[in-house]
Amino acid sequence: MRAIAQDEFGGVEVLKETELERPKPGIGQVLLRVRAAGVNPTDWKNRSRRTTVTTPLPLVLGWDVSGVVEETGFGVALHAVGDEVFGMLPYPNGVGAFAEYVLAPARALVPKPDGIDHVQAGALPLAALTAWQALVDTAGLRTGQRALIHAAAGGVGHLAVQIAKARGAYVIGTASAPKHEFVRGLGADEVIDYRSVDFAEAVRDVDVAFDTVGEDIGARSLPTLREGGILVTILAQTAPALQPEADRLGVRAVPMIVEHDQQGMREIAALAEAGTLRAEIAGTFPLADVAKAHEAGETGRTTGKLVLTL
Amino acid sequence: MRAIAQDEFGGVEVLKETELERPKPGIGQVLLRVRAAGVNPTDWKNRSRRTTVTTPLPLVLGWDVSGVVEETGFGVALHAVGDEVFGMLPYPNGVGAFAEYVLAPARALVPKPDGIDHVQAGALPLAALTAWQALVDTAGLRTGQRALIHAAAGGVGHLAVQIAKARGAYVIGTASAPKHEFVRGLGADEVIDYRSVDFAEAVRDVDVAFDTVGEDIGARSLPTLREGGILVTILAQTAPALQPEADRLGVRAVPMIVEHDQQGMREIAALAEAGTLRAEIAGTFPLADVAKAHEAGETGRTTGKLVLTL
Repeated sequence: MRAIAQDEFGGVEVLKETELERPKPGIGQVLLRVRAAGVNPTDWKNRSRRTTVTTPLPLVLGWDVSGVVEETGFGVALHAVGDEVFGMLPYPNGVGAFAEYVLAPARALVPKPDGIDHVQAGALPLAALTAWQALVDTAGLRTGQRALIHAAAGGVGHLAVQIAKARGAYVIGTASAPKHEFVRGLGADEVIDYRSVDFAEAVRDVDVAFDTVGEDIGARSLPTLREGGILVTILAQTAPALQPEADRLGVRAVPMIVEHDQQGMREIAALAEAGTLRAEIAGTFPLADVAKAHEAGETGRTTGKLVLTL
Repeated sequence: MRAIAQDEFGGVEVLKETELERPKPGIGQVLLRVRAAGVNPTDWKNRSRRTTVTTPLPLVLGWDVSGVVEETGFGVALHAVGDEVFGMLPYPNGVGAFAEYVLAPARALVPKPDGIDHVQAGALPLAALTAWQALVDTAGLRTGQRALIHAAAGGVGHLAVQIAKARGAYVIGTASAPKHEFVRGLGADEVIDYRSVDFAEAVRDVDVAFDTVGEDIGARSLPTLREGGILVTILAQTAPALQPEADRLGVRAVPMIVEHDQQGMREIAALAEAGTLRAEIAGTFPLADVAKAHEAGETGRTTGKLVLTL
């Protein structure tokens, strides 16, 4: 099968189109014919240096997948050959979705709703699961609470805004001014231009703050929280340093990393089917143009998700 | 840490108490201090010969665990140090729960309800998930349907009866006569003595049949099904041979293997907390007596689950 593999870490030039043996599904595994595979920041980070992936090189990246069940391993009852499914692959994992075929555990995948296409389904899993697991699983966000979503126009942020609204929260997003209309269109109740306004001063009584940015955003989010409030950060390194100040303020600072998740994917599929959750697509690229997709993502200037199609 | 490891396949004598290095939790992983670990048929099968486990020897068995969170890896937000949790470990997997400590992905584990102890929580996961995934995920069993549960007094079967009743089904169980009172006590509406009655003749209009036995039970279950009914078998090898006859009768024969599963565990925890689901405990053994637990299980004469305690 065709795959994009790398046998060293580095710039986009390490990504090589290669012929690999098509894998055989083992116990509880599904072999998918990949139709679309989202590109995420974790892809270019893991391309550049050994980051979260622990398996030996060569490495095939890609954690987001939407595709068609080609073959099922021993004992798989949840999906059948020909089913259209989508999901996030186990993280970290050495053989990913940037290939014609990929293996997945049956419970990483859920049926693709008929109303969304493979590009949309391939864009959602990792980013939407990150938002879901942060806001719902970790913070328990519920109706009437106030949520502060940083980088609300970002790959994870724009899905977090929609999920927070679907949970009935009042949503305050931060974004640069040119993206305010986009963020309001997602349902945000307030949008703050983080360049002209100090959100750490302007925002108060937040129940749940969500940081996908890093740097000083976590520390500056703590004073926006009400007592008992929670900051969830996917920059897990930053959370321990926040703990003394969080303790002083009577709030929590919790690091979180996304995990493949059947239950979360079912919720995401239901929201997508209802039209409540939709990934903005910044661009699609054929598999062979994977380097262009990495480059576009690394500029940080795209709005929405980049997706490879096969 | 103390662990029961084997560096060859064979009888109970291959199980050796060994000192192993305590593992460190990686990304998304939880290190558990094991308090109880259920023993399942898959344990003695994998002890005897290379069955489902693909990792190299030495091997530590044990897929059921109840314990206390000792340490969390990078980005784990779902559980905190000191939490009491239980779950099924990924299957197959080379380092299991028959040890003082074990690693688990965060989403394999759910909080242990306060109302059930570690022995009960350690007995439930693999067997209850097998029943849940077969009856609910695979067969979609619902109120008013008729379920045929084979080996209804068995490790999986006795939990399947309770789950089927909790779903509102009419439950027909098979068991040897001395176990009928036990099976009726679990809520079964009818119990058939498979030694004196040919269930393939006596039972009709079944929506969901569940085979945990193998041999000819699957084939003989097909005529009990109504048109459109489903047989789920965990003896996955037997299903393909049943397909021609299933097709002729207009029914389905589906093989299934259990998978670790957050969503299923949450359902099981809720049923256990409500008192609706309870594992019968055939016996508990200290970790050092693991060989006795294997021997007791392999007789096939115990009623309920065997659990190691630490």
